[in-house]
Amino acid sequence: MVETVVKVAINGYGTIGKRVADAVSLQDDMEIVGVTKTRPTFEARMAIDKGYDLYVIYEEKIPDFEKAGIKVSGTLKDLLKKVDIVVDCAPGKKGIENLETYREAGVKAIFQGGEKHDRIGHSFNSLSNYSENLGSDYVRVVSCNTTGLARTIFPLVRDIGVERIYATMIRRGVDPNDSKKGPVNAITPVLKVPSHHGPDLKTVIEGVNIDTLAVAVPTTLMHVHTIIVKLKRDSTTEEVLELWRNTPRVNFVKGSEGIISSAQIMEMGRDLIRPRSDLNEIQVWEDGVHVVGDHLYYYQAIHQESDVVPENIDCIRAMFELIDDNMESIEKTNRALGIN
Amino acid sequence: MVETVVKVAINGYGTIGKRVADAVSLQDDMEIVGVTKTRPTFEARMAIDKGYDLYVIYEEKIPDFEKAGIKVSGTLKDLLKKVDIVVDCAPGKKGIENLETYREAGVKAIFQGGEKHDRIGHSFNSLSNYSENLGSDYVRVVSCNTTGLARTIFPLVRDIGVERIYATMIRRGVDPNDSKKGPVNAITPVLKVPSHHGPDLKTVIEGVNIDTLAVAVPTTLMHVHTIIVKLKRDSTTEEVLELWRNTPRVNFVKGSEGIISSAQIMEMGRDLIRPRSDLNEIQVWEDGVHVVGDHLYYYQAIHQESDVVPENIDCIRAMFELIDDNMESIEKTNRALGIN
Amino acid sequence: MVETVVKVAINGYGTIGKRVADAVSLQDDMEIVGVTKTRPTFEARMAIDKGYDLYVIYEEKIPDFEKAGIKVSGTLKDLLKKVDIVVDCAPGKKGIENLETYREAGVKAIFQGGEKHDRIGHSFNSLSNYSENLGSDYVRVVSCNTTGLARTIFPLVRDIGVERIYATMIRRGVDPNDSKKGPVNAITPVLKVPSHHGPDLKTVIEGVNIDTLAVAVPTTLMHVHTIIVKLKRDSTTEEVLELWRNTPRVNFVKGSEGIISSAQIMEMGRDLIRPRSDLNEIQVWEDGVHVVGDHLYYYQAIHQESDVVPENIDCIRAMFELIDDNMESIEKTNRALGIN
Amino acid sequence: MVETVVKVAINGYGTIGKRVADAVSLQDDMEIVGVTKTRPTFEARMAIDKGYDLYVIYEEKIPDFEKAGIKVSGTLKDLLKKVDIVVDCAPGKKGIENLETYREAGVKAIFQGGEKHDRIGHSFNSLSNYSENLGSDYVRVVSCNTTGLARTIFPLVRDIGVERIYATMIRRGVDPNDSKKGPVNAITPVLKVPSHHGPDLKTVIEGVNIDTLAVAVPTTLMHVHTIIVKLKRDSTTEEVLELWRNTPRVNFVKGSEGIISSAQIMEMGRDLIRPRSDLNEIQVWEDGVHVVGDHLYYYQAIHQESDVVPENIDCIRAMFELIDDNMESIEKTNRALGIN
Repeated sequence: MVETVVKVAINGYGTIGKRVADAVSLQDDMEIVGVTKTRPTFEARMAIDKGYDLYVIYEEKIPDFEKAGIKVSGTLKDLLKKVDIVVDCAPGKKGIENLETYREAGVKAIFQGGEKHDRIGHSFNSLSNYSENLGSDYVRVVSCNTTGLARTIFPLVRDIGVERIYATMIRRGVDPNDSKKGPVNAITPVLKVPSHHGPDLKTVIEGVNIDTLAVAVPTTLMHVHTIIVKLKRDSTTEEVLELWRNTPRVNFVKGSEGIISSAQIMEMGRDLIRPRSDLNEIQVWEDGVHVVGDHLYYYQAIHQESDVVPENIDCIRAMFELIDDNMESIEKTNRALGIN
Repeated sequence: MVETVVKVAINGYGTIGKRVADAVSLQDDMEIVGVTKTRPTFEARMAIDKGYDLYVIYEEKIPDFEKAGIKVSGTLKDLLKKVDIVVDCAPGKKGIENLETYREAGVKAIFQGGEKHDRIGHSFNSLSNYSENLGSDYVRVVSCNTTGLARTIFPLVRDIGVERIYATMIRRGVDPNDSKKGPVNAITPVLKVPSHHGPDLKTVIEGVNIDTLAVAVPTTLMHVHTIIVKLKRDSTTEEVLELWRNTPRVNFVKGSEGIISSAQIMEMGRDLIRPRSDLNEIQVWEDGVHVVGDHLYYYQAIHQESDVVPENIDCIRAMFELIDDNMESIEKTNRALGIN
Repeated sequence: MVETVVKVAINGYGTIGKRVADAVSLQDDMEIVGVTKTRPTFEARMAIDKGYDLYVIYEEKIPDFEKAGIKVSGTLKDLLKKVDIVVDCAPGKKGIENLETYREAGVKAIFQGGEKHDRIGHSFNSLSNYSENLGSDYVRVVSCNTTGLARTIFPLVRDIGVERIYATMIRRGVDPNDSKKGPVNAITPVLKVPSHHGPDLKTVIEGVNIDTLAVAVPTTLMHVHTIIVKLKRDSTTEEVLELWRNTPRVNFVKGSEGIISSAQIMEMGRDLIRPRSDLNEIQVWEDGVHVVGDHLYYYQAIHQESDVVPENIDCIRAMFELIDDNMESIEKTNRALGIN
Repeated sequence: MVETVVKVAINGYGTIGKRVADAVSLQDDMEIVGVTKTRPTFEARMAIDKGYDLYVIYEEKIPDFEKAGIKVSGTLKDLLKKVDIVVDCAPGKKGIENLETYREAGVKAIFQGGEKHDRIGHSFNSLSNYSENLGSDYVRVVSCNTTGLARTIFPLVRDIGVERIYATMIRRGVDPNDSKKGPVNAITPVLKVPSHHGPDLKTVIEGVNIDTLAVAVPTTLMHVHTIIVKLKRDSTTEEVLELWRNTPRVNFVKGSEGIISSAQIMEMGRDLIRPRSDLNEIQVWEDGVHVVGDHLYYYQAIHQESDVVPENIDCIRAMFELIDDNMESIEKTNRALGIN
C-alpha cells in the first residue's frame, strides 16, 4: 500500500510557523519540504540547524543570507512548486496578500486567525467544525483566543445548550520573544466594542450568542479568559467538569496545588519537558469552575504561541481528506505531539 | 453662629490615610487633629513636615521615632481622647480589630472597604445610599472597586432599570509605592467565584443583580473594569452617555484623543496638577461605551489610591448630619478637592 | 527700571516641553508666548485649558484641531516671529532639523539631550559649565542621564579629583505615558560599547575620564545609575556625603526609612505635592554611598521626565546673560520651582 | 569491571533541585534515589510522574500528601540512609541548618550558593577550582551570578591577567514560576555596598580583585551583568573572543542576528528544544565585547535557573573522585546534558 504523505511548506518561520513545522515533522502522513524567512536572523540559522530547507520571500535578500553564512534553497515561488499545501504564518492581515500567489501555484493553503474569515471563506476548529472543511482548498485556522473559546464552549453548546456568553479576554501584551512592544505598566482596552473575538467564534460554532470585551496587559506568558455562560437549563459544577474531562485538548489545573496564576501553569509546561515548554491544551482552573442554577462561571488560560498548532495539523488532514472523522484525527495528532 | 468643626483622627497614615488627611484639611467643617504611624519611615517624617501631629500605635516604638528624629505627640489612645471621629485606614481586615478600642473611647469610626460589611453594619457610597448613613456611629466606605461600580451603575438602576450585570475586574497587582509584591509576569485569577465585588455592591445598592470575576495583573496604575449590563429595556449609547454626563465623579476619556490605556489616563491626572497626580473620578472611555438593544457594554478605569477619598469626606458629613442632602455634600467636597 | 522679560516658545509640547512651559511660567524674567503640537490629542486640549496659545507645525493639520474643537493660534513660523528664544523639545535627533528654521527666524534656540553636541556646538549643565554658555545663540541641555552624572560627579572633580569613573545606566524602558513600547519582560543591553553617556559627560565636564555601559529594563519611573569612582586620593564616605549635601539639586534618600527602590522615591515625590509629582533633584541613596580608600561606590536615581527642566530655565538665563553667576541662577530657579 | 554509581538524594525539589535531579539521571556514574518536598503541590505530583521516589521533610505532613493522592516513600531521614550524597537545594540560608543532619547520617553534601562560604568551608566552580574539592565532604556550589562571573573571568585571569573588575549585576526580580514577589514597576538597588557577588568570586578564584554593585528589576528571565575589566596588559577584542570561544559553557549571541535582549536569548533556548527551555551556558553578546587598550567591556546574561546545574554534577564527581581532571568531567557532563 502506498501511503500518502502530504508535502507541506511553511511560509513565515516565526512563532507559529516554527511550531507547525516541528509538529508536521512528527506526523507520519505529512512532511515539511521547506520554510521561508525574510531576514537572516538567529531563527533562520536555527531552521537550518534543524534540517529544514530555507527559502526566502524576496530574491534580492539572498546576499544578506549568504553573507551571514545561512544557506538558501530558493525563493517562495521555488518552494511552492514542490508542495501540496502551504501553511501561511505571515503576520496578521498580511497572509491574505499571499492568496493569489498560492492560487497561481496551484497549492492549497491554510491561513492563521489574524486573517479575516470573509476573505478566506472557511474557518476551522478541530472539535467544532472539522467535517465542514473536508476537501477545502483555502481554510483559516481561527486565532488562539477563538480556539480556546471553541474548545470549552462547543461541548456546552452540544450537550447542555447555551443561551448567551459574556467573556472578557485578558490578553498578554506581547509574546515572550518580543522586547520592543509594550505595555510596560498599563492596561489597554480594546475600544471597538464588542471585541472581534465574539463574532469570530460564530465562524466555527454556528449561531452561538457571545459578547466579548478585551484588554491587553503587561505579561508575555498566556491570555486568560473570564467567562460567564447562561445555559439553556440548570446544571451543576460536576456536570460541566465531567463534560470537559472528556473533551480533548482541555486540561485542568488547581489553585489548591499551587497553580495560582499563569506563571505556575507555564512552569508546569516546562516540567512536562515539552518542546519549547509549550502547552497545546486549554488550561481551565478546576477550582475556579462554578455553576449556580443556569449560570456557569470559569477561568481559562490560553498558551497563545501553541494552542493552534495541533489544529493546523488536523486542518491539513481535513483538507486532504486523510481522515474523515475529527476525533480520529485529534487523537492521532495528540499522540504524535504528546498531548494527553 | 458657631460653626461645627468635626475633629478627625486618621489611624494609619498610608496610601488612603494620607489622602483622607489632606482632603479633610481642605474642608471648612472638619479638621485633622492627628495621624498615626507604626514605624519611623519617610512617610512619618513627611506627615510632620506637613504639620500633622504624629501619634504611635505602640508606645514601645516611641524610642525608634525619637532616634530617627521624628517627633511623637502620644499614642493612639491619647489621640482618640481629642477627636469626634477616627478614620480607620489600617490594612484590610485589620481595621475591625480596632472597633472595640474606638467604642471604648466613645468616638465614631469610618472603616475602609477591606473590612467586612457584616462586622460594621453599615456601608456607604455618596451617590447611592448617603441618607441611610445619617447619624450612624460606625460606617464602612466600600472599596475602590465597589465605589467605581456604584458610581456608574447606580444611575442606570435609578433611571433605566438593570436586570443583571456581568463584570470583570482587571486589578492592578500592587500600588505604585510597593516594590515587594508581584506579580511580575503573570495573570492571577481570583478563584473564589463569583468574586466578592459583586455581593459587595449590594451593600450600597440594594437588590442589584451582579456577577463578577477578577484577575490581578502586573501593573500599578489603575484597575480596569469590563462591564456588560442587561438593562430592563432597550436604550441607546447616547442615553447612557447623557446619564453619566450628569453624574458626579464620573469623567469621560477618549481613545481618539490618545488616551488608549490607563497610562495616558494617569498622565492626564498629572497634567491636571492635582495633588499626588490623583484622579478621584471614575474614568469611562467614551468611545468604548456601546449599547445594542438592551445590552450595554463599557470599560471604566479606577484610580485605586484615590477614588474613595471624597466618599470618606461625605461619609463624615453624613455621620454628623452636617449636611442632609447627598448631592449638596458631594458638590461641597468636589469644590474643595478641585473635582470637576 | 524696565525689567527684561524673555519671550519663550516651546516647540513640542510633550513630556519635556510641557514641564519647561510650566517652569518658565513660574519665573519673573521670562514668559511663554506659545507652544506647538502636531496632533489634536488630550495634551493639546490641556495646553489650551492651562492658558497657553497653541500653534501647529503643519498648517494642513489645522482642520483636524478645529474639528476637535481645539483653538489654533497659527503655525510655528507665526510663533517664532513673536519670541526671543525657542526651546526645542522635538523627539530625539529631530530637533536638529529645525535649526535652520530658527536661524532664519532670528531666534535663539535650546535643544535637548537627544541631539548631538557636534551639530549644536554648545552643551549646558547649570552646575558644571554655565559660564561657558553666556550669550550663546544655540545650546544643547544635556540629557537626563548626563545631567544626573554631572550633578554628582562635578563636585568630586572640583574638590577631590577624579581619576576614572565606571558607571552603568539602568534605564527605564519607557516613560509613564507610553503604553506602546516595551520591553515587557526583558533586559536590553546597549551593545554600542561604551555607551554614549560617558563621552556625553565630557561635553559639560572637560577631560573627565568615564566609561559607561547601559541596559533598558521594564519600568517607567526612573533611571538608576550604579557608579564606581576611582578618586585621585583617598577619601571618606562622610567627606563625599558632605560635598553632596552642599550641592544643589542633589537629594538624599534612605533605604533605612523605607525608600528601598525607585517606587518609594516617586511616592515621596507625590507626597511632596509637586506638580506632576516630579522630582527635579538627583536622588542619591545615602546608605548606599561607600568609600573604601580611593574608591567611591554609589547609587543614584534620575527622574528622566523632569531633572533637566530647571537646567533649561538656567540655560535661558545664561543665553540672555540675565544672570552671570550660575549659583545665583540655580537658586532663583530652585526657589521658583520649590526645589529645596 | 564494577562501575561505581553514586547514590544521590535531592533535598528540596524546587527550581534548582528538580533540574539537578534530571541532570543526575542523565549521567552513567550517578543516580537519583529520592527527592524531598514539604507540601503536596503540582511539583510533588510531577516528581512522582517522572518516577522519582518522594520523601517528606516533616513526618506530620504525610497525611496531606496522602489526601492529595501523592505517594510518599518516607522521610528525609529514611532517604539519607540510602544515599552517598545529598544535594541540598533548600531556599537560601536554610541549607546550613541541615548540615548537622547530614553529618549524623554520614553522607556527603552539596549546598547551593545562597549559603555562606564560611559555614561550609569549600566553594566550587567546575572551571576555576575543581581540583581543590577532590574528596571533600561538604561543598558549596557558588550562586548563579558567581558561576557566571567565574566562567568568563577565570580565563582572563589565567591567560591575560586581571588587575581589577568593576561589575554591575542587573538581577531578574523573581523566577518565572513566582507570581507573588515583585517588583512590578521599580528598580531596587542592593544598598549593602559593594554587593556580596564580588567577595563571593574570591571563594573560587583566589585573589581576584572585583567590585560589584547590584539592582533587581521587574523581569523573570535572566540576570544581565555589565562588566568592565582592567587587564594587566593591553589586549584586543579578538584575543578575548578567542579565549572565550575555547571556554566551556560560554556561548556567544549576536545583536546583529536579532538577539537584542534577554527575551530573544531565552527564545533561542526554547528553539534548541532543551528540557525546560534551559540554557546552562553563560551567554555573552559577541557584538557587545569591546577592548580598548587594557580595558575590556562586555555584557553577559545568566540563566539563573540552570547555569549551576552542570556544576552540581561536576561537583559530585570531584567529591567522590570519580574523575580527577576538571575538563574531562566538564566534557562528560556537557555531553550528557546536550551542552555544546
